[in-house]
Amino acid sequence: MKISKLVGKRVKETPAGATLNSHILLLRAGYIKQVGAGIFSLLPPAQKVSLKIQNIIRDEMNKLGGQEVLFPVVMPRELWDMSGRYSSIKNEMVRFKDRTGHDMLLGMTHEEASVHMMMNTATSPEDLPCMIYQIQTKFRDEARPRGGLIRVREFTMKDAYSFHTSQEDLDSFYKKVYDAYIRIYKRIGFKNFVVVEGDNGIMGGKISHEYMAVTDVGEDSLVICPHCGYSSNMEVAVSVKDENDHNCLGEMEEVFTGNAHTIEEVCAFLETDAKHTAKAVCYKTTDGKLVVAFLRGDYEINENKLSKLVKSELEYVDVEEFGLFAGNIGLVNLNLPEGSYVFFDQTLKGLENFVTGANKKDFHFKNVSMSRDFKDAEFVDISLVKQGEKCVHCGEELKLTRGIEIGNIFQLGTKYTETMGMKINMPDGTAKAPIMGCYGIGVGRALASIIEEKADDKGLVWPMTIAPWQVYFCPIRIDDENVSAVSDELYKKMLDSGIDVLYDDRNVSAGVKLTDSELMGVPIRVVISPKTMANSQAEVTIRATGEKLFISISELIPEIKALIQDEIDEIEKDLK
Amino acid sequence: MKISKLVGKRVKETPAGATLNSHILLLRAGYIKQVGAGIFSLLPPAQKVSLKIQNIIRDEMNKLGGQEVLFPVVMPRELWDMSGRYSSIKNEMVRFKDRTGHDMLLGMTHEEASVHMMMNTATSPEDLPCMIYQIQTKFRDEARPRGGLIRVREFTMKDAYSFHTSQEDLDSFYKKVYDAYIRIYKRIGFKNFVVVEGDNGIMGGKISHEYMAVTDVGEDSLVICPHCGYSSNMEVAVSVKDENDHNCLGEMEEVFTGNAHTIEEVCAFLETDAKHTAKAVCYKTTDGKLVVAFLRGDYEINENKLSKLVKSELEYVDVEEFGLFAGNIGLVNLNLPEGSYVFFDQTLKGLENFVTGANKKDFHFKNVSMSRDFKDAEFVDISLVKQGEKCVHCGEELKLTRGIEIGNIFQLGTKYTETMGMKINMPDGTAKAPIMGCYGIGVGRALASIIEEKADDKGLVWPMTIAPWQVYFCPIRIDDENVSAVSDELYKKMLDSGIDVLYDDRNVSAGVKLTDSELMGVPIRVVISPKTMANSQAEVTIRATGEKLFISISELIPEIKALIQDEIDEIEKDLK
Repeated sequence: MKISKLVGKRVKETPAGATLNSHILLLRAGYIKQVGAGIFSLLPPAQKVSLKIQNIIRDEMNKLGGQEVLFPVVMPRELWDMSGRYSSIKNEMVRFKDRTGHDMLLGMTHEEASVHMMMNTATSPEDLPCMIYQIQTKFRDEARPRGGLIRVREFTMKDAYSFHTSQEDLDSFYKKVYDAYIRIYKRIGFKNFVVVEGDNGIMGGKISHEYMAVTDVGEDSLVICPHCGYSSNMEVAVSVKDENDHNCLGEMEEVFTGNAHTIEEVCAFLETDAKHTAKAVCYKTTDGKLVVAFLRGDYEINENKLSKLVKSELEYVDVEEFGLFAGNIGLVNLNLPEGSYVFFDQTLKGLENFVTGANKKDFHFKNVSMSRDFKDAEFVDISLVKQGEKCVHCGEELKLTRGIEIGNIFQLGTKYTETMGMKINMPDGTAKAPIMGCYGIGVGRALASIIEEKADDKGLVWPMTIAPWQVYFCPIRIDDENVSAVSDELYKKMLDSGIDVLYDDRNVSAGVKLTDSELMGVPIRVVISPKTMANSQAEVTIRATGEKLFISISELIPEIKALIQDEIDEIEKDLK
Repeated sequence: MKISKLVGKRVKETPAGATLNSHILLLRAGYIKQVGAGIFSLLPPAQKVSLKIQNIIRDEMNKLGGQEVLFPVVMPRELWDMSGRYSSIKNEMVRFKDRTGHDMLLGMTHEEASVHMMMNTATSPEDLPCMIYQIQTKFRDEARPRGGLIRVREFTMKDAYSFHTSQEDLDSFYKKVYDAYIRIYKRIGFKNFVVVEGDNGIMGGKISHEYMAVTDVGEDSLVICPHCGYSSNMEVAVSVKDENDHNCLGEMEEVFTGNAHTIEEVCAFLETDAKHTAKAVCYKTTDGKLVVAFLRGDYEINENKLSKLVKSELEYVDVEEFGLFAGNIGLVNLNLPEGSYVFFDQTLKGLENFVTGANKKDFHFKNVSMSRDFKDAEFVDISLVKQGEKCVHCGEELKLTRGIEIGNIFQLGTKYTETMGMKINMPDGTAKAPIMGCYGIGVGRALASIIEEKADDKGLVWPMTIAPWQVYFCPIRIDDENVSAVSDELYKKMLDSGIDVLYDDRNVSAGVKLTDSELMGVPIRVVISPKTMANSQAEVTIRATGEKLFISISELIPEIKALIQDEIDEIEKDLK
């Protein structure tokens, strides 16, 4: 490819509104163009990277015996009524009426379509296990698209669905996919990613794992044990909670706290520590019931866990509607309307001499003690893991970090096969709904996340396995006849020997060319100029390390091929 | 691939509602499954064929210097307001509101998105010409989806867009794409296709060509000159019209014709021939104006040409609302409301002594003559080409046939670049809207059309270049230990030597296996059985011809590879 003909312009300026490195660099290097909120066109270099990532994924899916299929983007409502998700999924799903007035939707995932394909297709136990997968466009009407390709509304996704007649069979297959995913991310070039226990969200089912690119700009909080390898999404993470101090029990006492409403204000006012307070966090369920969650003042609520306890999304609540005083809600003298939920987090277990709201305007109680005043309280786990807590598995200190979810795998159980009526005729004469797994990877998200991991202050840095080109061939002073002739010849030789090369054939300054080569992130840059040619050499620079080599022009082609292979070998060296 | 694990069941019965051969066979062979009206899932074999077709297309696009990109399926209304198509395209286009109430649409084509990508990207003449293309899912809300993959609502399409600074440049590039398309269809395996002059429909622009798979089940009528190669879609076809006989002019006379209204009835009543009548065909424009078209009674109206003349779609009209008598409309005494259109087709030129309606209930005129009674009439071409007419280019007899449109190419002009404001800064200081071409291929339509061309009464017949597998390996009596051992070994050898093989590892009767192999259309079938093994042979059958060979098992792998190569060479032999 000659850069003079490449569609896409490189720009110096940081584009307005872009804050993430991957977003900025993809725009600046001419890889993407925004069409709408969370909607992008991919220019040729981005599409090249995307196709390479897709081929790595395809290869690993095929190795697992996966069979590539294609499900429709647009589906009729009936299919999703069978699973109940036409109603249960809210406005993340696009719905429209077709010309005949029929209710249609855009598939944000394809469990229903996969069961539809397998129904009456797999009917006997010998037909299973099997996995079908597709690589296709999905549209999810995200509330907050952000960060370029990190959180979009339209994206290319690989989604796979497996079917099994027993949990053991799913377990064993799930483990294989788990490992294949690790290979996929390694082959894409990720060095810094973890697998965490995940939350199943709208998918149903129990066991799931999320593959997380570890980065400060990630929107997911992760809990990792560097000692034993335990790792989890914060949403479902567990920990050994901070133990509470034991004290001589003081007498419970109502105290005026006036305008002190937040934990910080109350602690300052009463000269105590958040560790010695119990705070309330309140919500409303979708059917209007009050939810009051108490936890130790220095902890934060885990809304995901709380939401699961009440089996409802959590909505904002104006507590005064329920007769409560915001900032003065506490365990003592609590009067809640019938049907309200109240929960005590495990961080309150054994808490003594603590401060809590008096359920009376401007007052708190102090010296409240769980063991004495709330003997019968039952505790649940609804607090977020905190820095410094210990691992429940090995007792070592946990580490909190952030990540971008670049893939996920789920054990779905029989939710879809049962609701849709898919049956396998078992040898014992019974009919069994197969157990499913599903496995997703967002291609664009992976593409952007690897940038977050690799890019430097000069621009993109692509791993060799997914780079849009392997070599950026960059003759300086191409107006010089000698340079021009040798360049054209070398370019032809590179192409003939199968090197995927971007030829900077522009007659522009060395500065422009070298800056562009760095911005675009091509792994190997080959420069020739009157100066290098005087020594019959080319200057070769490795983008990732900055390492420079001078290679004899006569040896250039085989040497470059060796360098390319070295980079691939380095990426693929520790694949199982 | 082992057939025991292949997703998809083969069935004997013709599926209800399927009439086209391709539809029936794709369902029966387990290639597709219907999800909704005009919406299908592709099972693994169909997806394999689809990907192979896509790769042929991709290869030819890349050879033209095409750069692969990806446009969004979902686009905001604003982009399509720029070209005016948000309003001008009717309910073929899916529109919906996103969660914020914003008007969105599903892209049925991507001219707007391509200009959006190129705007401010290509700005100087050196940036052009260029062609970008994508392979992606499109949804068009067709009124009448039919025939399995022939006319669907959702489909995978390759769409390409080229940009030029001069008409000459577009002409020369257009010719290259024209030729590349011929190579594509040849490589897919089409033998019987033609390129016809097309109609530009909703795309705008002037020159266009359609690639038509010639088949009786096609929904397009084609006009072909076997002598000089002229070929055209009936919608825009031209011909040398039948000459009118010259007669001694009779005296015009009003005659009672009673209930004789159709041309057949009037001719029978007056004992004349349709060639000696002038009939009226009436429509209404979308803004309610009457359109009356006169043509010789033995010709049919070309609605497409008429529609272009009045620059409106043609709607059904109740002529009595305009004071006319259905069945008695004619040239004589015609009184039309102001603003009505009246046209005379060229088939009326020189017509003498003809019958036409008297514009009076139950009456016609006879012995009307154009030269005498309508001296000033101007003639237009609004009649369909008729069997037996002559080619305007060479004078030889034209042939009428039918076809399925498997691709189209358009010269778009500057419609999109001008309305969207894309400019190239020319050396003379002016800013110029680039001239565009666009080029589409529906992948699924091509897949189904090649079936219409090749399939026989036993099932599918895939050309080697796009076959889901090259070889169907079919051991008979696999319960025999000897057969089983040799089969497993041969299967492994085939895989190792890169043969794409479907292994029929089922322990079922020879009849089932052989029938399935024929139904599925794999180009080469290899049978081993205790009988062939007694002679150390395998029986090899070529699906397309039925030719049988007996090949020594020791020579099998190289012989099969040679047969595969022969079939590919045969397909690719006459590529330019």
